[in-house]
Amino acid sequence: MKIGLDVMGGDHAPEAAVLGAIEASREIMPQTRIVLFGDRSLIEEILKRENQDPDTFEIVHTTEVIEMGDNPALTFVKKPDSSISVGFKYLHEGKISGFASAGSTGAMMVGSMYTVKPIDGVVRPAISTIIPTEEGESSLLLDIGLNVDCKPDVLYQYGIIGSVYAKTFLEIDNPRVALLNIGEEPEKGNLMTKSAYELMQGSSEFNFVGNIEAKYLFSKKIADVIVCDGFIGNTILKQTEGFFRILKKQGISSPFVDSLDDEVVGGTPVLGINATVIIGHGCSGPVAIKNMLLQTEKSVEAGLVEKLRESFK
Amino acid sequence: MKIGLDVMGGDHAPEAAVLGAIEASREIMPQTRIVLFGDRSLIEEILKRENQDPDTFEIVHTTEVIEMGDNPALTFVKKPDSSISVGFKYLHEGKISGFASAGSTGAMMVGSMYTVKPIDGVVRPAISTIIPTEEGESSLLLDIGLNVDCKPDVLYQYGIIGSVYAKTFLEIDNPRVALLNIGEEPEKGNLMTKSAYELMQGSSEFNFVGNIEAKYLFSKKIADVIVCDGFIGNTILKQTEGFFRILKKQGISSPFVDSLDDEVVGGTPVLGINATVIIGHGCSGPVAIKNMLLQTEKSVEAGLVEKLRESFK
Repeated sequence: MKIGLDVMGGDHAPEAAVLGAIEASREIMPQTRIVLFGDRSLIEEILKRENQDPDTFEIVHTTEVIEMGDNPALTFVKKPDSSISVGFKYLHEGKISGFASAGSTGAMMVGSMYTVKPIDGVVRPAISTIIPTEEGESSLLLDIGLNVDCKPDVLYQYGIIGSVYAKTFLEIDNPRVALLNIGEEPEKGNLMTKSAYELMQGSSEFNFVGNIEAKYLFSKKIADVIVCDGFIGNTILKQTEGFFRILKKQGISSPFVDSLDDEVVGGTPVLGINATVIIGHGCSGPVAIKNMLLQTEKSVEAGLVEKLRESFK
Repeated sequence: MKIGLDVMGGDHAPEAAVLGAIEASREIMPQTRIVLFGDRSLIEEILKRENQDPDTFEIVHTTEVIEMGDNPALTFVKKPDSSISVGFKYLHEGKISGFASAGSTGAMMVGSMYTVKPIDGVVRPAISTIIPTEEGESSLLLDIGLNVDCKPDVLYQYGIIGSVYAKTFLEIDNPRVALLNIGEEPEKGNLMTKSAYELMQGSSEFNFVGNIEAKYLFSKKIADVIVCDGFIGNTILKQTEGFFRILKKQGISSPFVDSLDDEVVGGTPVLGINATVIIGHGCSGPVAIKNMLLQTEKSVEAGLVEKLRESFK
């Protein structure tokens, strides 16, 4: 298997990306090969400095870089030789099986939606994150920012997508899917969650267990998969990030607190599209990049895309 | 000044309510008198057991109690002699200047909206909470659950309401008002926040400083007043509650962590109505009840309702 990495994306590129790739190369399966997309001379310079055999990687030289100010929608037209544009071209042509980047989220999304495209039957793909719990096991939260005005049928599909992901990655047989809401009772919530509850109730496509309040987000008490609108999911994530930062600043540590560090998680898969695409935080350091690559490998190896396609047949 | 307390409301009623009232009676101003609404014999029994002079309080005997299963909308019709119904009657007639309860939030809201009524010009009242920050000072968050499908003009008015509250209670001269969003840039967000941003931008009624991401919620970096839809605000609050519970369970303490305890805060004022109404957590213990009463007194003393009315003239 070949997996691609955008070396030019992220606040600490290309340094962090290349260092992360070197670390990942020591942990991936022997038959996996990492393909680096970016400026060849910059990449080779770092590899040389790190005394890393350049043959560890396949390098695809690209001449353009997507900047933060660039309009993501125009990425593939205006900068066809950017690392992200070329990466998606390779992905689309099957030359790589997965693609990861800590660069422009917008450009990665445009590539996912218009080059790779949603799986037939999926109304809206989602991005998700693993959330740690006080019990030490993981749950899944989606959507965390791709769809900020979710319709109820989209939330319903997130139940299916989240279930497949939890079965595949969290190794949970019959994942409990809950709808994030402001009360446990079915009649609680806003217009969106009330309608979504009605759709989800009695679903035969996933194991719906009802509403979950945010106080049980970081607990295994209620659910394994939590679905919500992207605005809410993104807010939850950023609030967690804020808490973590303050606690760390105050020198507070515990297994639970430390598990909130998103550097460990790596990246966010785009779920519901026809290939494995992982988007990392802009601030990703080498550890996050490494974990993002391992996650990409694992996702391809587990056949996540094929399983999702199967669920929407 | 007379301030009313619903003694029959809350998970630990009437015990916690009466004990909280006793504690509050030692801290209020000499000219303030607490009026207890509830079953006289139950109240007197607790007072006797606590060796508390029954003349400390004025007691208004009521014969009915709003239960969790009761439809809040019908409270005042079906149970006219409940502690909440009678309390609102007293409030409406000016026999008390403020009313507090840890009982049915729904019934308290119905009383606020239909007995006390919104201030002229206020589209939708809000409920708010003080949030602690890493710097040790307080910020204000609203709405935290009253309006779960907020329109942009309602969010705009929350800017005004929050500003008045922050000036009055947090003693901030020119409070910075920010809109909770998933990005700092004006064009970020969902349909609601994008429209609200446009309305708020350049407002002469409050000091709008732009968007705030949830990672800066518990920080003084960006804003003093944070406005959001009630679904979001409620979710933020419950996530905080969940974090606090886990950290406490793990024996983690710090001034910041401890400040997340909502027992200390007391209750949530209903803002934008024609009287002081404070709603406490159902699980309120005596300390929360005491703080809720002190908050009621302070709110009446500061003339918050009059100041809000002035702002909507």
